Amino acid sequence: MNQLFRQRAFLTARVQKKVHEDRGLIRYLMRHHHTTPFEMCEIKFHVRVPMDCWRQWIRHRTANVNEYSTRYSVAIDSAQTTAEQEWRLQASGNRQGSAGFAGDTDGKTLTEKERYLQTLAREIYDERLKMGIAREQARKDLPLSTYTEAYWKVDLHNLLHFLYLRMDSHAQYEIRRYAEIMGHEIVAKWCPAVWEAFLDYRVNSSHLTRLEMEVLTAMTQGDKEKAVALGKQFNWLNDAGEPKKNRERLEFEDKLSNLGLKAPW
Amino acid sequence: MNQLFRQRAFLTARVQKKVHEDRGLIRYLMRHHHTTPFEMCEIKFHVRVPMDCWRQWIRHRTANVNEYSTRYSVAIDSAQTTAEQEWRLQASGNRQGSAGFAGDTDGKTLTEKERYLQTLAREIYDERLKMGIAREQARKDLPLSTYTEAYWKVDLHNLLHFLYLRMDSHAQYEIRRYAEIMGHEIVAKWCPAVWEAFLDYRVNSSHLTRLEMEVLTAMTQGDKEKAVALGKQFNWLNDAGEPKKNRERLEFEDKLSNLGLKAPW
Amino acid sequence: MNQLFRQRAFLTARVQKKVHEDRGLIRYLMRHHHTTPFEMCEIKFHVRVPMDCWRQWIRHRTANVNEYSTRYSVAIDSAQTTAEQEWRLQASGNRQGSAGFAGDTDGKTLTEKERYLQTLAREIYDERLKMGIAREQARKDLPLSTYTEAYWKVDLHNLLHFLYLRMDSHAQYEIRRYAEIMGHEIVAKWCPAVWEAFLDYRVNSSHLTRLEMEVLTAMTQGDKEKAVALGKQFNWLNDAGEPKKNRERLEFEDKLSNLGLKAPW
Amino acid sequence: MNQLFRQRAFLTARVQKKVHEDRGLIRYLMRHHHTTPFEMCEIKFHVRVPMDCWRQWIRHRTANVNEYSTRYSVAIDSAQTTAEQEWRLQASGNRQGSAGFAGDTDGKTLTEKERYLQTLAREIYDERLKMGIAREQARKDLPLSTYTEAYWKVDLHNLLHFLYLRMDSHAQYEIRRYAEIMGHEIVAKWCPAVWEAFLDYRVNSSHLTRLEMEVLTAMTQGDKEKAVALGKQFNWLNDAGEPKKNRERLEFEDKLSNLGLKAPW
Repeated sequence: MNQLFRQRAFLTARVQKKVHEDRGLIRYLMRHHHTTPFEMCEIKFHVRVPMDCWRQWIRHRTANVNEYSTRYSVAIDSAQTTAEQEWRLQASGNRQGSAGFAGDTDGKTLTEKERYLQTLAREIYDERLKMGIAREQARKDLPLSTYTEAYWKVDLHNLLHFLYLRMDSHAQYEIRRYAEIMGHEIVAKWCPAVWEAFLDYRVNSSHLTRLEMEVLTAMTQGDKEKAVALGKQFNWLNDAGEPKKNRERLEFEDKLSNLGLKAPW
Repeated sequence: MNQLFRQRAFLTARVQKKVHEDRGLIRYLMRHHHTTPFEMCEIKFHVRVPMDCWRQWIRHRTANVNEYSTRYSVAIDSAQTTAEQEWRLQASGNRQGSAGFAGDTDGKTLTEKERYLQTLAREIYDERLKMGIAREQARKDLPLSTYTEAYWKVDLHNLLHFLYLRMDSHAQYEIRRYAEIMGHEIVAKWCPAVWEAFLDYRVNSSHLTRLEMEVLTAMTQGDKEKAVALGKQFNWLNDAGEPKKNRERLEFEDKLSNLGLKAPW
Repeated sequence: MNQLFRQRAFLTARVQKKVHEDRGLIRYLMRHHHTTPFEMCEIKFHVRVPMDCWRQWIRHRTANVNEYSTRYSVAIDSAQTTAEQEWRLQASGNRQGSAGFAGDTDGKTLTEKERYLQTLAREIYDERLKMGIAREQARKDLPLSTYTEAYWKVDLHNLLHFLYLRMDSHAQYEIRRYAEIMGHEIVAKWCPAVWEAFLDYRVNSSHLTRLEMEVLTAMTQGDKEKAVALGKQFNWLNDAGEPKKNRERLEFEDKLSNLGLKAPW
Repeated sequence: MNQLFRQRAFLTARVQKKVHEDRGLIRYLMRHHHTTPFEMCEIKFHVRVPMDCWRQWIRHRTANVNEYSTRYSVAIDSAQTTAEQEWRLQASGNRQGSAGFAGDTDGKTLTEKERYLQTLAREIYDERLKMGIAREQARKDLPLSTYTEAYWKVDLHNLLHFLYLRMDSHAQYEIRRYAEIMGHEIVAKWCPAVWEAFLDYRVNSSHLTRLEMEVLTAMTQGDKEKAVALGKQFNWLNDAGEPKKNRERLEFEDKLSNLGLKAPW
């Protein structure tokens, strides 16, 4: 946190302040999206990640990356494996997600076949190398579950953005687990005041859209009729005032329930 | 090229000039690394690329990317295959490269096994989907050779940087082929004057290091003794003035041969 | 919007959809921070801006810039001037802002001196050039109010981020006016569905922090006691339950009033 | 340099090597543009720079910046001043540069007027503040020579790119002096092996274009006729084989003279 403290010095006419006030300043900066001070802190991770997961990770462009080269070296002899009870079912509501787990029998079959496929793929890779094939080409059929390693260097602002997106419940489980550990185990210890502010003002905050604000305001005014009229106008309700299949309406109802409220329809 | 012409207007006191002069200006800008005008041109590619190759591509961070999502959709049912005569051998000199091809018998075996592995991997993927496994997890053991698709949007300056690195003989064959086609078939037609300048001042230029300049100057002065002394000083030659195993010396000798010259040792 | 439509094709299994559905998709993408499709649209502005304002503008790094060069050309002979009634007073609450206007007499003096200073600075600049001084050095004492010109090229996602920050009431008036015109006059016409979604889900949305959610939930449950206890715990209230000087509390009360509610203390 | 050493471990199968070999690896990486290891080193500068110079500095986008805010605080009461003998004349050949100095009489006048203008500008600024004008507006007519301060954080790769461009003889004197000190006084001590490689392979290297290579090859083959024919073809010489006014020809002749050679025309 040395850096933020120096930033603070900047912002507060270079007067020495107490930790208590630093915490207040950090929270203020976070709340008001003053992001440049957080760019002043830099961290470097050494990660081992399945290539499938790394494909998502690397989409975050504002970072420095040095990845293990399988052109130069033999590929890491390890792949991410799935236990019998860990096979997730396709979510029906969310085309991008999973929900629930496969049954025991299916899980057993799936895990066995996974093991067979991974073993075969590695054997073929090793055989190619033994036959003198170039590493850069031999690797071409390795499964996406094969581990890669990288140094990943990033500033605190961009790291928090990564964590915000990847700790989210919509992020894929695999990368979410990395994000949660990086956040709760590492950043939380490295910059406790920043982490706390990040949880309070980003992760555990709620966002109300213009439409949601209008309905909620009608509700807090006790004007149920207006709330329903708005719901119709927003295409959330049919002409009879009954809920339509509408994702935005469901999102709003979730937020209401977080506030201990029920929809007026 | 509309944009560069507008830039030119900027740089030349907004006086209308002829194409001949535009070409001269473009060449001047390229030669002197005035890169901002080239950032003003933007192009968007729609590419289909094996994931293995895409892993290299995506390392170029200054671009906009929208990739086909295999969380949302079923993975593309196509993988990059290798013909019997296309299996490349590991280079001995260059740990990162390939050199020459495997023999016919080996090639036949390798291609057959590749086909077997790719087919099996796809069957297992399809089976997972049929058993209801989430797409985001089912894909985990697809081979790296599986195709992905993406929109890749980039400005001309960063595209030329990409092409410079990926058209290079040290780039892996697979991505080099993409780069060559993007350069020679697309950019050459889109911005002919820029492309010509890029070839003259980047691709087909030569770079002489401080050490190489010193030896070459000794050579052009006819001072063979000094050239050899420098070679010893740079650790390119042993005390007897004989070539040592030294990559930098080999690189220099290559450059000399491009100039029709021979090393003085 | 061609590009977003092509993206949509991507995301919806390449099935042709109607404009109505495009609008729905665009709103979904905006609401859920799926930003890559918006990066696929690119726009280029030609702007004339006082250097003082440009200093803030240029802090947005993800853009391509080609600025008028005052090394190469004579500086633009125009500076931003302030009318008598436009002189803004320092805000007392907000160290970074302004509030209210100077009186007529002061305004008259200030505008006269501004004109005198700007005229003198230009005369000295012109005199330096006449004496043969290099343009790159002669410009050194031009006032920050001197206009510069630039091409500024940016993708739609980063443009919206720029507009979100610079249309905000905390942004300085000068750059805010540029942002408002770029947004309401240009983007609104270029991409009407995106602009509408941006207003609904970003500009006119409200953000409730974890702390605010807790107090609001207590309020909606009718548990005034708990709301006050939380206020004390958050240091918003003193032990007697009375409001303390606390910026976060004031921010919350503003949000309550947007919802037609009053603080329970 | 810890990081590069760890990178090396990566690249060399994690075998412990001696400093001698580290130096060799660093030089290899620099020579072959393997830039990612250099991105792993990060440095933060605290700089005080005239705003005029900062306008050039900030154009390097891949860096983290935290600048002293003159909305929040009173502007630094210091401007860059020019001694009587430091006034540079406009270069005739290079529209962007300066060459030689103004005479003593002119220098004296120029410096006196500079002092007068800077003093007046500051008085007007102070007066505005005293009249209660907001800092964000009061600053609008400060001269570009006014100092600003910033934390500037950058990785080693991007820093070297900055230094390459700004230590160049075509860079403006003011920023060149900063670059030279950052390079020769700071980076040289921080990463001596990297700095040495940077000087040998970038700063003191020479670049020969395709055209230059062709003429030089003709020269080294003793084929003066061909060299002259090429010169005509490239528009460097007129039909009589005499030098035309051509910047590219002059650049080539400079390079020849660095090699101790004379043009064959």
